[in-house]
Amino acid sequence: MQPLPSKLLEDAVNEMSSLPGIGKKTALRLVLHLLKRDTAAIDQFSGAFVKLKRDIRNCNICHNLCDEETCTICSDRNRDRSLLCVVEDVRDVMALENTGQYRGIYHVLGGIISPLEGTGPSDLNIESLLLRVQTGEPKEVIMALSATMEGDTTNFYLFRKLKDFNIKLSTLARGVSVGDELEYADEVTLGRSILNRTPFENNLNR
Amino acid sequence: MQPLPSKLLEDAVNEMSSLPGIGKKTALRLVLHLLKRDTAAIDQFSGAFVKLKRDIRNCNICHNLCDEETCTICSDRNRDRSLLCVVEDVRDVMALENTGQYRGIYHVLGGIISPLEGTGPSDLNIESLLLRVQTGEPKEVIMALSATMEGDTTNFYLFRKLKDFNIKLSTLARGVSVGDELEYADEVTLGRSILNRTPFENNLNR
Repeated sequence: MQPLPSKLLEDAVNEMSSLPGIGKKTALRLVLHLLKRDTAAIDQFSGAFVKLKRDIRNCNICHNLCDEETCTICSDRNRDRSLLCVVEDVRDVMALENTGQYRGIYHVLGGIISPLEGTGPSDLNIESLLLRVQTGEPKEVIMALSATMEGDTTNFYLFRKLKDFNIKLSTLARGVSVGDELEYADEVTLGRSILNRTPFENNLNR
Repeated sequence: MQPLPSKLLEDAVNEMSSLPGIGKKTALRLVLHLLKRDTAAIDQFSGAFVKLKRDIRNCNICHNLCDEETCTICSDRNRDRSLLCVVEDVRDVMALENTGQYRGIYHVLGGIISPLEGTGPSDLNIESLLLRVQTGEPKEVIMALSATMEGDTTNFYLFRKLKDFNIKLSTLARGVSVGDELEYADEVTLGRSILNRTPFENNLNR
């Protein structure tokens, strides 16, 4: 890309393109779009991120992002506290909540074990998970991590830490996505889905 | 999308998704990515846009964005001041500079006549263009606007304003893009490209 005519513009474009998936050209388009707004609107745009960083909190129970000491899910008396679902981050909580199928509570690890990115077990909220399990309140821990190499590594690490507690350990079912045609499912998924086949009536009420 | 667990997060996501082409899901991904940075990095991110809005200037000759009173192109003594190229915005200046084929100077309209978006001639830098032409310095005005309905409307408006001055008026050549196959060119472009055919030797030195 041609050098920009202004250092200030260049700084703004560099900041914008530091976001994942935003290239220099897109960043320039976004910055020029911003520049058309009035000063108050730009202060509001910029202020939102500064305020977020300054005031956001992590739930003191499950580590989900929230505005209070304890998140709305953990403070909800109607949730089933014997079911504890371990997820990577806040987006996974939202995705599971979106299904409307889960009434337990969560534990947000804040990442996933990834030697490539330098994330080890000590960088994650694993100690506090063990403390929660030690209270005896959770009867089942559902490991709802991504079906990737890193997810499986983390699952295995958690399994070794949790296997001596008197609780049920489970993972999300792996299988053919609803709406997918069989011939396009990969062989590992299809293999697991036939090994872990479920009773016919389990799929009726979806 | 599921309601977010935090009002602060929601505000930040709303601001991010107010940018063109950024949906709520992408915005959430970008905001969570930002949130992983330290406070100083976020201040720098946010500050870049505030500083840009506060300190950016428009060149007092061509209205291009710049940090000084006059942009680097207008203050360059080696540019041909008899050639004046009219463009919509700073990105078009960059695109033309990128070609390395143009040694004249520019005039940035700051937009294009678009009744649908409520942009009329008085919203554009047209008065100052007429003043520049009146000085007699430009001998040719090149109207380098997009080949769209709005571009053509603006071209026509400028043509009517400029036709009584003793200057040459031209537009960018419309024709088959370099690298395009003929059968995929649309008929209007192909029709214009045969009407405005150029001498063979003009295409040799590209």
